[in-house]
Amino acid sequence: MEEKDIELLEKEKMYRHSMSHILAKAIKQLYPGVKVAIGPAIDNGFYYDFDNLSIGPDDFAKIEDTMREIINRNEDFTRIEVSKAEALDLFKDEPYKIELINELPDGETITVYKTGDDFMDLCRGPHVENTKFLRGFAYKINRASGAYWRGSEKNKMLTRIYVYGFLNKDDLKKHIQQVEEALRRDHNKLGRELGLFTTVDYIGQGLPILLPKGARIVQLLQRFVEDEEQRRGWLLTKTPFMAKSDLYKISGHWDHYKDGMFVLGDEEKDKEVFALRPMTCPFQYQAYLNQPRSYKDLPLRYNETSTLFRNEESGEMHGLIRVRQFTISEGHLMCTPDQLEQEFKSCLELAIYMLKTLGLYEDASYRFSQWDPNNREKYIGTEEQWNEAQDIMKNILDHLEIPYEIGIGEAAFYGPKLDIQIRNVWGKEDTLITIQIDQLLAEKFGMEYTDKDGSKKNPYIIHRTSIGCYERTLAYLIEKYAGAFPAWLSPTQVKIITVSENNNAYALEVEGKLKQAGLRVESDLDNESVGKKIRNAVLEKTPYILVLGDKEMADGTVAVRRRGSKDTETMGYEAFLSEILLNIANKSLNV
Amino acid sequence: MEEKDIELLEKEKMYRHSMSHILAKAIKQLYPGVKVAIGPAIDNGFYYDFDNLSIGPDDFAKIEDTMREIINRNEDFTRIEVSKAEALDLFKDEPYKIELINELPDGETITVYKTGDDFMDLCRGPHVENTKFLRGFAYKINRASGAYWRGSEKNKMLTRIYVYGFLNKDDLKKHIQQVEEALRRDHNKLGRELGLFTTVDYIGQGLPILLPKGARIVQLLQRFVEDEEQRRGWLLTKTPFMAKSDLYKISGHWDHYKDGMFVLGDEEKDKEVFALRPMTCPFQYQAYLNQPRSYKDLPLRYNETSTLFRNEESGEMHGLIRVRQFTISEGHLMCTPDQLEQEFKSCLELAIYMLKTLGLYEDASYRFSQWDPNNREKYIGTEEQWNEAQDIMKNILDHLEIPYEIGIGEAAFYGPKLDIQIRNVWGKEDTLITIQIDQLLAEKFGMEYTDKDGSKKNPYIIHRTSIGCYERTLAYLIEKYAGAFPAWLSPTQVKIITVSENNNAYALEVEGKLKQAGLRVESDLDNESVGKKIRNAVLEKTPYILVLGDKEMADGTVAVRRRGSKDTETMGYEAFLSEILLNIANKSLNV
Repeated sequence: MEEKDIELLEKEKMYRHSMSHILAKAIKQLYPGVKVAIGPAIDNGFYYDFDNLSIGPDDFAKIEDTMREIINRNEDFTRIEVSKAEALDLFKDEPYKIELINELPDGETITVYKTGDDFMDLCRGPHVENTKFLRGFAYKINRASGAYWRGSEKNKMLTRIYVYGFLNKDDLKKHIQQVEEALRRDHNKLGRELGLFTTVDYIGQGLPILLPKGARIVQLLQRFVEDEEQRRGWLLTKTPFMAKSDLYKISGHWDHYKDGMFVLGDEEKDKEVFALRPMTCPFQYQAYLNQPRSYKDLPLRYNETSTLFRNEESGEMHGLIRVRQFTISEGHLMCTPDQLEQEFKSCLELAIYMLKTLGLYEDASYRFSQWDPNNREKYIGTEEQWNEAQDIMKNILDHLEIPYEIGIGEAAFYGPKLDIQIRNVWGKEDTLITIQIDQLLAEKFGMEYTDKDGSKKNPYIIHRTSIGCYERTLAYLIEKYAGAFPAWLSPTQVKIITVSENNNAYALEVEGKLKQAGLRVESDLDNESVGKKIRNAVLEKTPYILVLGDKEMADGTVAVRRRGSKDTETMGYEAFLSEILLNIANKSLNV
Repeated sequence: MEEKDIELLEKEKMYRHSMSHILAKAIKQLYPGVKVAIGPAIDNGFYYDFDNLSIGPDDFAKIEDTMREIINRNEDFTRIEVSKAEALDLFKDEPYKIELINELPDGETITVYKTGDDFMDLCRGPHVENTKFLRGFAYKINRASGAYWRGSEKNKMLTRIYVYGFLNKDDLKKHIQQVEEALRRDHNKLGRELGLFTTVDYIGQGLPILLPKGARIVQLLQRFVEDEEQRRGWLLTKTPFMAKSDLYKISGHWDHYKDGMFVLGDEEKDKEVFALRPMTCPFQYQAYLNQPRSYKDLPLRYNETSTLFRNEESGEMHGLIRVRQFTISEGHLMCTPDQLEQEFKSCLELAIYMLKTLGLYEDASYRFSQWDPNNREKYIGTEEQWNEAQDIMKNILDHLEIPYEIGIGEAAFYGPKLDIQIRNVWGKEDTLITIQIDQLLAEKFGMEYTDKDGSKKNPYIIHRTSIGCYERTLAYLIEKYAGAFPAWLSPTQVKIITVSENNNAYALEVEGKLKQAGLRVESDLDNESVGKKIRNAVLEKTPYILVLGDKEMADGTVAVRRRGSKDTETMGYEAFLSEILLNIANKSLNV
């Protein structure tokens, strides 16, 4: 996650790769029946795949020790050149190596590396010359998991051992800390622990179930976005989630996007074939097309809390970030050429307002996603049209001084995009928000307006999201706040804890009043110690904990413990109420 | 739509049927090449189907006159009995009659009715004896439209002439007035005219597009329902719209409901087959299943603004009432046997609260939907289980004194239902709200709770909606209010009209202040007469029209015209604001 110079990176890679041979040698020594497959260096260390190996975390120390022993033997890494026939003979007991050797061209010289006298691996190298150079190398087995031979489900499942490996102990320690921090925040783990969402095998991958706490956050986000968009002059639509193939044939999705769509029915057998929508565009255009339009009606801005469906492989699914069904703050805006820059800017301002309100602004970066002229069949429109649209977008971005990177081949099939990118805790980047310029689809759908001079023209269309996908936004919020959401978004805003049963009636009275004020409140009246009840509420990351005992009951006060602080402040009920209401109204990020 | 005694109904039917012969005779006289098909009496008159006839509304008067001429001739209706061979000979030039005759059993006596000397129809009768009895019969051709021979798309399209027909002029006049009133309110016509929704051929039947004004009403309804449910202790979920077939195999949908579902993929070819959900039940159960449950956790109430999909024929689709995709205020509640009656009652109270708030309560009736024991394959569970569930429901309904009708075979496949029924302007009844008792699905999904004695038990499940389907609710609201929605639901609540351009700035100031107060406001600053602008606003059924001229501007007042009144009242801005805000907060039905 830090930058290292290229020479150091090459060295690290060579050391990691050498270590993977040490791992294989150690495994062969400990588990003689094992067959070896392949073992490359990776980003944070290396792995090796083995057949006929069954191990668990309890075995890791023993394997690490055996690797240490081998390193301490100061064994040479010896490079040997052999013919294909010799290689097939050398590896005759290793079927996976045999398979790889058989695929090499006849007559080519094959290199083999020997570590000590008793371990040999098919390998291009380079490697360290002797294991003594690996003495300072810091490593730790991360996990063992199943992996198909050559990544194909059709092949046998092997055992892959992942090892963290760095040139020094500090780097390893730092990396493990980063992983632990990422794990602590990982929405796919924490989101489940906090009862925000779950997935169920018999429903399917990429189809998360939002449990009450997660659904509440998404409801709050959706209302916030719809209301803010309404204030900014967007008109809400609700359009169907499916259409006949006829629609997608006009839009170009049938030719350019069909593989990513869920199709209902069979074109050869059924009179009507439907498909679930992967995008909202052609549906929302119908609102524009519902009556004749004049230049006086423009810009026309339509927003929708829109559910979309993408037919992706089960293996690509990840928590709330890569899903098959998702809901986005969709919008399409039709305008004249004169209005384009101002409207683009307004869309960007809205997106930035959203990111700032959610506290995600600092984590975002910009990508100007362009077409790939060498992959013409992915796009509609001519080269001239693409150059024109991209020039317009470049001018706007430069004029607005947006610091973007360029993404070739990342455009939509109908036009270039400004993508607002964000990274998850594991460093993987995805698009959260997008603003796109499209001068092609209006013509395909016959969308026109009558200009001042009476002529008919196609409007420009801006496709945009203002917060992006709600599932993905929830994932980033979980990771950003490690589950400790700002009070306005917290599923439970106030947790009331009683000191003894005597205070239950007072607790329920306070709960009732706070609920009347529109707050989300839970009371813990269990017959447990105050300390234990506070610990539970802290684990649940509730923004405000109220501890109510005899004194508070007698005085009509509340003892407030704010999240992140171990202090408790006793204050009047009204004072607490105005503090929390103000924080919520301001969408404060500090509580 | 009124009740008539049975004798009169029989007479009316005979007269209508006799009139259909008169129609056919008139058509044969006017258009000699025409072939006759069939012509029955119907609810409000009669029709006749013809082949090789092309007519339009301009021809109706001529046809009505010819019918009158025939009636005035005092022709006899003569009943003749013939053999099949004789019948085939008599109708040798009428291919549709020949087809019908050929299907009759050999040897059966066939009856033919002759009107005058030159028209004969295959018919069982009875008929009036002479056309003179038809002199007082009141009739009017309604429309001509296409109809497939015998209702099948595989057959030829014929021309069907619909005629309104009643025993006296008053009944005919009353019926035509009722039709005009229904047409005026028909959501499928008015909803489009008011810009609430549209449909588009290339998207498909039963997939309405909610335009901004319609989408706003649905948004308001959904928020109202979600908030009211939250107040009553329901926990919001958001669950996916599709699942693998595995889920539906557990729930029983795969065996009992598959024909009504949209299936994605092919069971024989694809590794994973998905289907769009026709119901929310098995999805929402996952929230219950997410952790172990104790009797202390019950009742657990889950609500969801849930979109469902039903794969129905295009021909069955109707506006917003019969659709392929719809969104409902879904809910599932898990409880102990002891809690069942109280929870059922709470669900009913919530439904009645919703109906009363929307002003639909008086139009609703109750149906106790039971299984059909003669159609066992439609249901899961044993006869004992069904009898038990229906007994429980009957006891609750009787105890709550619900005045229900019984609907045999109308139960869900998993249990009996209380359906709250409502009729559209055409008299067609549909279910708006449903409350169901289910003691079967919890076991199938392994849903349990630990009871006081430590034993594991399956909870009872109540499936319920609190407002039903939003599309359907919008349809009934359009028809109930003929588009003049209560102010809290009106897409535009206030229309501001300026007397002259001088008042534009004041209008925009008032608009801005009203919008700040959260109201939905539009200004008409067009350079038109005040009268014309008021007429337009009245046509749009805006609850409040503000007319702003120089006097109002000078005094800081507004001239208010309330919907339904032709008077304008001048009042202070603040007084108007508190009036409208109060009406909205109270969800008043009177404005």
